[in-house]
Amino acid sequence: MPPLVVGVDFGTLSGRAVVVQVHDGAELGSAVTPYPHAVLERALPDGTPLPPEWALQVPADYVEVLRTAVPAALAAAGADPADVVGIGTDFTACTMVPTTAEGTPLCELPEFTGEPHAYVKLWKHHAAQGQADRINALARERVEPWLPRYGGLISSEWEFAKGLQVLEEAPAVYAAMRHWVEAADWIVWQLTGTYVRNACTAGYKGIHQDGAYPSAEFCAALNPAFARFVPEKLEHPLGRLGDRAGGLSSHAAALTGLPEGIAVCVGNVDAHVTVPAADAIEPGLLVAIMGTSTCHVMNGAELAEVPGMCGVVEGGITPGLWGYEAGQSGVGDIFGWFVEHGVPPAYHEAAAAEGVSVHTLLTEQAAAQEVGEHGLVALDWHGGNRSVLVDHELSGVVVGQTLATRPEDTYRALLEATAFGTRRIIQAFDDSGVPVSELVVAGGLLSNALLMQIYADVTGLPLSTIGSAQGPALGAAMHAAVAAGAHPDIHAAAKAMGSRRRGVYQPDPERVAAYDELYAEYLTLHDYFGRGANDVMHRLKARRRAAAAKGAR
Amino acid sequence: MPPLVVGVDFGTLSGRAVVVQVHDGAELGSAVTPYPHAVLERALPDGTPLPPEWALQVPADYVEVLRTAVPAALAAAGADPADVVGIGTDFTACTMVPTTAEGTPLCELPEFTGEPHAYVKLWKHHAAQGQADRINALARERVEPWLPRYGGLISSEWEFAKGLQVLEEAPAVYAAMRHWVEAADWIVWQLTGTYVRNACTAGYKGIHQDGAYPSAEFCAALNPAFARFVPEKLEHPLGRLGDRAGGLSSHAAALTGLPEGIAVCVGNVDAHVTVPAADAIEPGLLVAIMGTSTCHVMNGAELAEVPGMCGVVEGGITPGLWGYEAGQSGVGDIFGWFVEHGVPPAYHEAAAAEGVSVHTLLTEQAAAQEVGEHGLVALDWHGGNRSVLVDHELSGVVVGQTLATRPEDTYRALLEATAFGTRRIIQAFDDSGVPVSELVVAGGLLSNALLMQIYADVTGLPLSTIGSAQGPALGAAMHAAVAAGAHPDIHAAAKAMGSRRRGVYQPDPERVAAYDELYAEYLTLHDYFGRGANDVMHRLKARRRAAAAKGAR
Repeated sequence: MPPLVVGVDFGTLSGRAVVVQVHDGAELGSAVTPYPHAVLERALPDGTPLPPEWALQVPADYVEVLRTAVPAALAAAGADPADVVGIGTDFTACTMVPTTAEGTPLCELPEFTGEPHAYVKLWKHHAAQGQADRINALARERVEPWLPRYGGLISSEWEFAKGLQVLEEAPAVYAAMRHWVEAADWIVWQLTGTYVRNACTAGYKGIHQDGAYPSAEFCAALNPAFARFVPEKLEHPLGRLGDRAGGLSSHAAALTGLPEGIAVCVGNVDAHVTVPAADAIEPGLLVAIMGTSTCHVMNGAELAEVPGMCGVVEGGITPGLWGYEAGQSGVGDIFGWFVEHGVPPAYHEAAAAEGVSVHTLLTEQAAAQEVGEHGLVALDWHGGNRSVLVDHELSGVVVGQTLATRPEDTYRALLEATAFGTRRIIQAFDDSGVPVSELVVAGGLLSNALLMQIYADVTGLPLSTIGSAQGPALGAAMHAAVAAGAHPDIHAAAKAMGSRRRGVYQPDPERVAAYDELYAEYLTLHDYFGRGANDVMHRLKARRRAAAAKGAR
Repeated sequence: MPPLVVGVDFGTLSGRAVVVQVHDGAELGSAVTPYPHAVLERALPDGTPLPPEWALQVPADYVEVLRTAVPAALAAAGADPADVVGIGTDFTACTMVPTTAEGTPLCELPEFTGEPHAYVKLWKHHAAQGQADRINALARERVEPWLPRYGGLISSEWEFAKGLQVLEEAPAVYAAMRHWVEAADWIVWQLTGTYVRNACTAGYKGIHQDGAYPSAEFCAALNPAFARFVPEKLEHPLGRLGDRAGGLSSHAAALTGLPEGIAVCVGNVDAHVTVPAADAIEPGLLVAIMGTSTCHVMNGAELAEVPGMCGVVEGGITPGLWGYEAGQSGVGDIFGWFVEHGVPPAYHEAAAAEGVSVHTLLTEQAAAQEVGEHGLVALDWHGGNRSVLVDHELSGVVVGQTLATRPEDTYRALLEATAFGTRRIIQAFDDSGVPVSELVVAGGLLSNALLMQIYADVTGLPLSTIGSAQGPALGAAMHAAVAAGAHPDIHAAAKAMGSRRRGVYQPDPERVAAYDELYAEYLTLHDYFGRGANDVMHRLKARRRAAAAKGAR
């Protein structure tokens, strides 16, 4: 049998293992394990209540994926574990585990089982906004050189804001915490027994730039007790993506059924690892992982600071190139929200009669329209704006509704709005000297052909699609193959194991011209509502909070 | 038995007769007759197709109301026809009948049964926009003194635009037409055998100001063949509202079962006649007739030219005062559109389970909210803007939607948007020296208590409601009582027969303050989208038409 690798993708609600052939990337079998505790948003397992905006996880759930999904994937593949030469993982980010010196999560210590801050802070834990605001204000004031690398804003989701929150709200947990570990690295630690910090999250989420973290002076100015955060909690030797973090420990071999000592690669992040899986490593190929939200990742040959982007990190996607990241807060979840909350019974009945989803029904109806026929233009900010404006207080707008407007009209306008959002991000890259030449789509939304054609027509770019339906897990497996020495580097692995279907959707010149005009309308509204000319969205959200608080009294 | 009068209200789809006691306005019985041909929008009765924007009616349908609804109302009232001393009517406007010298509608002549222009042009016939545009351009160019009386714009719905359309599209009909008659006057002609033109529609719809119509030079400049439109087709002695137009003819007596010779009053318009029915004749009481759209009518002691209003006419509502009119194109029909096209199955099921309408369910849920709790602000232009901006190319906007927005949130925001629209109209009156001191609501929407409270809170005015559920028919009956000499004038009739429940809804100071802030947001968006800063709505509608035309090819 040819050699195999295993990739394990740790998502928000479950982990997926896939068994892949090293020489051609063929996916032989896969298995999914939902996390037993899913996401803790209202209470800890013992009933301790959680405040709003919190989102925690239980680290033992990740181990459960290794214990069940990996053997199940091997069984589904009909694979002999002895043929497996390496295992790789990818994770959500920034998802943080507070641990002891040995890597034991603090929530597993008896004294901390009822302490929320001892649990994993999931990427979408948004309760550290106050800390993030202070970090940004101080960084601007001190003109910190790393700030422009993040488009000018550090997110409340990232390592520093979440770590400062632990210090300020649970000093005992902070004192007991020896390492503040990305879950991407913690899972590798469980596989190898060795802690290696990956270069990707260290850069994008840990503010590691040009070989250094924010200074002790900076941290002390945030809070004197935070002064030694970097050396005491964060700093650790970095591993390059695709490097061997270690060999599979006997403990982990017993857990997974894989051979002891096989290569375990350095931890990866789900979006970034999709780039080689789509064979899209070359500069200029913007990979959009489109699901409930969209993450955009792209390599560039040189460093450029792009306003409003999430970050640029050397070797952040693949070694030797600058990795750029951007994103849209709401994409598929806007479409889902509309279908759930804005479509009348007749459409649900018609979809049921046709045996299709309401999404499919609306898509069929919207596909029959000419560009502009619905008379609408929308802003895709129902979940805020993650890139370009970087403002989560923004909200959605639909302009142009009449008594003749039907659900398929608004649905199409929302599809288009997200395409305009992606075009605005591409424009930011282009304007900053990081030109985009091709759009490569991965993720669940690529099954919607109308949506893909709209993206091609709105951006005017050829649109390629990833070959695999399990991009992140495949990408993780490819890094395992590199770590195992089966391919010389990730570039070779991408050529051999990754794939993209080139130019599946081509822009239509007539529709491109029509969308140029509608995009101009989008841009005008984007800047009017997003850049201070009319701050109505901020005022509406502030009023909403005040009114809700009053109503709750 | 005390003396009685009959009022007949001719609406868009049906006619309603009501039998009323002269001394106290008690409504003893009523009956409704739907028009057999309803509204002709796609084809004539013989199948001749109609272009878009057309809306015609069949005049015999109006006679059918006299023949069936009047006797049925008398029967329902248990009334002896011998006790009836007068009959009055009110009509939609501007609804125009082309007739011979004897008043025979041209569509009843054999040579014209297949000719669309020979039929009644209903108020909402919107196919004369090109003619209206030319009338407005020419009037501005010539600085015609009557133009400011109409807020600066003559509507495509009115007598001149519709008449010019007949000339230019069907010259044979125009040549055969001896009178271009308001349906409000045509129905009186059927009752009395005499043509009397009422002062109300002559002023609001016929551009009769300061004793004159637009000049022959003006008409000739529109089209040389239109030069003698006024003397040859339009001009006719005017009757004041409440005057006796004549006695009931023997023919009409036989038709209705009423005594020959009883008083028939001069024709009235549905909205305007509601003012005395609500006992709201005094200056400063703004009467809002709220249904699918809203018509605002109010008396003023003096003439003022109010920008963006529909019109001001001396004696247009009641003799001796200046009658002001304004309106909102879409009110109840926006709520109806949202319920039909934007509310998901669960709400329909919950309403059915509760045994209430979806409107009621959404209203109950929206009523539980604090002001601003939904985080939304909307513009109520789904049907265009009839007053202040006077622009039917404007369209709806909702700002502030998030993934947490639910149908009751948007529903409440739409209720509020129409209230903001009314406040903007009140502001225009106030700013022009025609102060509004009280809001008086009539029409179907007054049954929604939440909507009424929102209007009180948004306008900061006490809100009164009309006592009668059949305001227009009652108002028509009151004019009959005046014409019959049972009351000295309409003021006395209003006191005796009309009624309003004063200040049923009082503004709440805290909510008034909160709405002041939201109204400021509305105003900013109103001026941004409505006054040229961003003409996106016009461009979207133009694109929509072009795309629809392209799609139809």
